[in-house]
Amino acid sequence: MAFDLLIHNGTILTCNPDFDVIAGGWVGVRGETIAAIGRTEPAPLPAARELSDARGGIVMPGLINTHTHLPMTLFRGLADDLPLEAWLNEHIFPVERAVITPASVRWGALLACAEMALSGTTTCCDGYFHENTVAEALREAGLRAVLGQGVVDFPAPGVADPAENIRAAREFASAWLGRTGTITPSVFCHSPYTCSERTLVAAKRLCAELGLLFQVHAAETCREHELISAAHGVSPIGWLERIGVLDPQTLLVHCVQVEAADIDLIAERGAKVSHNPESNLKLGAGIAPVAAMLAAGITVGLGTDGCASNNDLDLFAAMDLAAKLHKVDGLDPTLISAERAIRMATIEGARALGLEREIGSIELGKQADLIVIDTRQPHLTPLHHPASAVVYAASGADVEAVWVAGRPLVRHRRLLTFDVAEVMRRVEAIAAGCRRMAAASA
Amino acid sequence: MAFDLLIHNGTILTCNPDFDVIAGGWVGVRGETIAAIGRTEPAPLPAARELSDARGGIVMPGLINTHTHLPMTLFRGLADDLPLEAWLNEHIFPVERAVITPASVRWGALLACAEMALSGTTTCCDGYFHENTVAEALREAGLRAVLGQGVVDFPAPGVADPAENIRAAREFASAWLGRTGTITPSVFCHSPYTCSERTLVAAKRLCAELGLLFQVHAAETCREHELISAAHGVSPIGWLERIGVLDPQTLLVHCVQVEAADIDLIAERGAKVSHNPESNLKLGAGIAPVAAMLAAGITVGLGTDGCASNNDLDLFAAMDLAAKLHKVDGLDPTLISAERAIRMATIEGARALGLEREIGSIELGKQADLIVIDTRQPHLTPLHHPASAVVYAASGADVEAVWVAGRPLVRHRRLLTFDVAEVMRRVEAIAAGCRRMAAASA
Repeated sequence: MAFDLLIHNGTILTCNPDFDVIAGGWVGVRGETIAAIGRTEPAPLPAARELSDARGGIVMPGLINTHTHLPMTLFRGLADDLPLEAWLNEHIFPVERAVITPASVRWGALLACAEMALSGTTTCCDGYFHENTVAEALREAGLRAVLGQGVVDFPAPGVADPAENIRAAREFASAWLGRTGTITPSVFCHSPYTCSERTLVAAKRLCAELGLLFQVHAAETCREHELISAAHGVSPIGWLERIGVLDPQTLLVHCVQVEAADIDLIAERGAKVSHNPESNLKLGAGIAPVAAMLAAGITVGLGTDGCASNNDLDLFAAMDLAAKLHKVDGLDPTLISAERAIRMATIEGARALGLEREIGSIELGKQADLIVIDTRQPHLTPLHHPASAVVYAASGADVEAVWVAGRPLVRHRRLLTFDVAEVMRRVEAIAAGCRRMAAASA
Repeated sequence: MAFDLLIHNGTILTCNPDFDVIAGGWVGVRGETIAAIGRTEPAPLPAARELSDARGGIVMPGLINTHTHLPMTLFRGLADDLPLEAWLNEHIFPVERAVITPASVRWGALLACAEMALSGTTTCCDGYFHENTVAEALREAGLRAVLGQGVVDFPAPGVADPAENIRAAREFASAWLGRTGTITPSVFCHSPYTCSERTLVAAKRLCAELGLLFQVHAAETCREHELISAAHGVSPIGWLERIGVLDPQTLLVHCVQVEAADIDLIAERGAKVSHNPESNLKLGAGIAPVAAMLAAGITVGLGTDGCASNNDLDLFAAMDLAAKLHKVDGLDPTLISAERAIRMATIEGARALGLEREIGSIELGKQADLIVIDTRQPHLTPLHHPASAVVYAASGADVEAVWVAGRPLVRHRRLLTFDVAEVMRRVEAIAAGCRRMAAASA
């Protein structure tokens, strides 16, 4: 057999450096990797163990979500439309303390996997607690991920004593280093206002020692800016620079409240940014200056954030909003084109995670993380320009088929790797407990 | 038989004045109207000719799109990410002149009907050219609509001589007045900068004579504000007030560039507003001050605008964006709650169109325009609060069933009233002509 998998009869959105789009093309996969890309539909087709007909749809790299808190699917829509502090302190933190256990994390993470796979996301970058359980869920589901055990200077689920937070992060990372091809360990520090200088520096040192990505929420809100300025006399980004944690292996999540000097610092140090527009809007945090960051040469990936602050994991919605939001912010409809939004959700997301040699585009030798979008639908007709359809008209519900490392996860919109109905039943039972708790405390 | 249709086993989001939500409820329909609303699931169920099991999903009023240009589905994604003037003058207007005929309008409008029905919209308010053909398409498809023949002071498709624009509007309105229960004629003036004072006043007089809604794009962009200020020394809203066209039967579309005095004027005159956040962002027009308009007591409905500037007709996306956008604009996450966004897409939309006694909520005696959302899906699990799920997590693709005036339009996500595959083939053929034209002129 020439190929293990041949996806044909599609428009190939390669997301390669030239952003080549190949009408009537095909992609041949051998094992885990992309072995050939056909520029015209051959007749007869090359031999393949599995033949997948894209039926005129769009074939593109699987989407890359650079910021999630997967188990927070449990809290989707539990508390909305509230001031940030009340939302965190009166709703999210109490319910996390009561409900988050390895068992609930497992079901919440599996639910997130189902949602991601069914909406075309093949890689996520996550930070939460009981992260070992999150990793097991992702391995079971077959998705690719960069995962960080959460580090914060107060008692957290699974880490009752904050003095143990770096030890727990090291334990998680060591356990998963080199264990599978699809799970990459990382460290996730919550923020510069919930982690001390000592904690941030120790976490970054651990990352340097083991070659890991360092994730941190940074410059999300005005309140954070006030807190850090009052404590240290500099901006949050200035603070991270001063303590030596800005470098190309640092992923700064949000970067909403950043000024020109902050942007220059991020660019100089080569740190990466995860842009989460839906969360930033829903929490009233602000609009990240993405056009300015891109102009400064910063790598910006897209993220959804957790389901408590979005409230879903659909990266198509994030692409659509990223493309539209910065146009209105700059009163300039040429900012963040559809192509740029797709790059942010694919190859630039890969670069933000340090995985640009493995994933993020359809190129020879890269991992076969692929999705097919069914375009034979009223809202995707006519198909004047595939990139426009993907960003401005498609949704996750249009994803027909998904592969990660050549393994099929979704076919005809059905999840193949686990029983999603069982997961939904388990999550709904946990959620009913959350609601009883909320009612009792009200 | 007690009922012609009984929808049961659902959570009923009534959108009545108390925003009652009824778990395990049912809705009984006789003929075109809602005849009974059950507060608990009865056993055995009342007799009904057709029984529809919502399977635990959400039953709500059909969504109301207060601003569309339906045939512009033909131009979905033809030209994006361009400055407004270049987009209109170099792309949209030339292709409209070349392509818009009664035949192409028919196929474009039918495609829009398929898209709207399949995403839970049961009523739209449209303004375009060859509007008689749009009306025929909507009647064929079974949707409800308020439709205005377009009025503009330059040659337009079907109205070569602008001196005939009011006559054409009268002819359309007279032909459809009282003709069906679901099509309500209206007049659509393009804008205060493309229609003279004389045209605007004549159109409004026609509306007053026949009891019609007067639709007009107003205060969309800074450029419009400059043009009107330079010509008349007042804001666009001030200009419409001065020439006497602001009253409760006027629907002002966009109202992005409005200041406090404009908001006071709109509120005093009781004029209505159609908010189109996706279009305003994509064209870089600005953010309409919706929270301030609502605080002033103005009725604000939601719209998608045409498919050339959005690029879809999914009101779920408009609800999600409306709820999020004003939170970030006011840096206040309590602004525009999920409930408020749903009201804007249902009962407030009905009020904006003067149809609040007929549609917009599930109440006894109202028209049976109903939709069922399938909530048994990962991204809608858990279901802590139905209103949150509808706004922040659902998309049009989650709509399982749709009725207008008791007539089923969609069942199990399949359109029942016409052959959508044929419509898609026709539209794709017209679109190929648009692309050839674009290539030839490039």
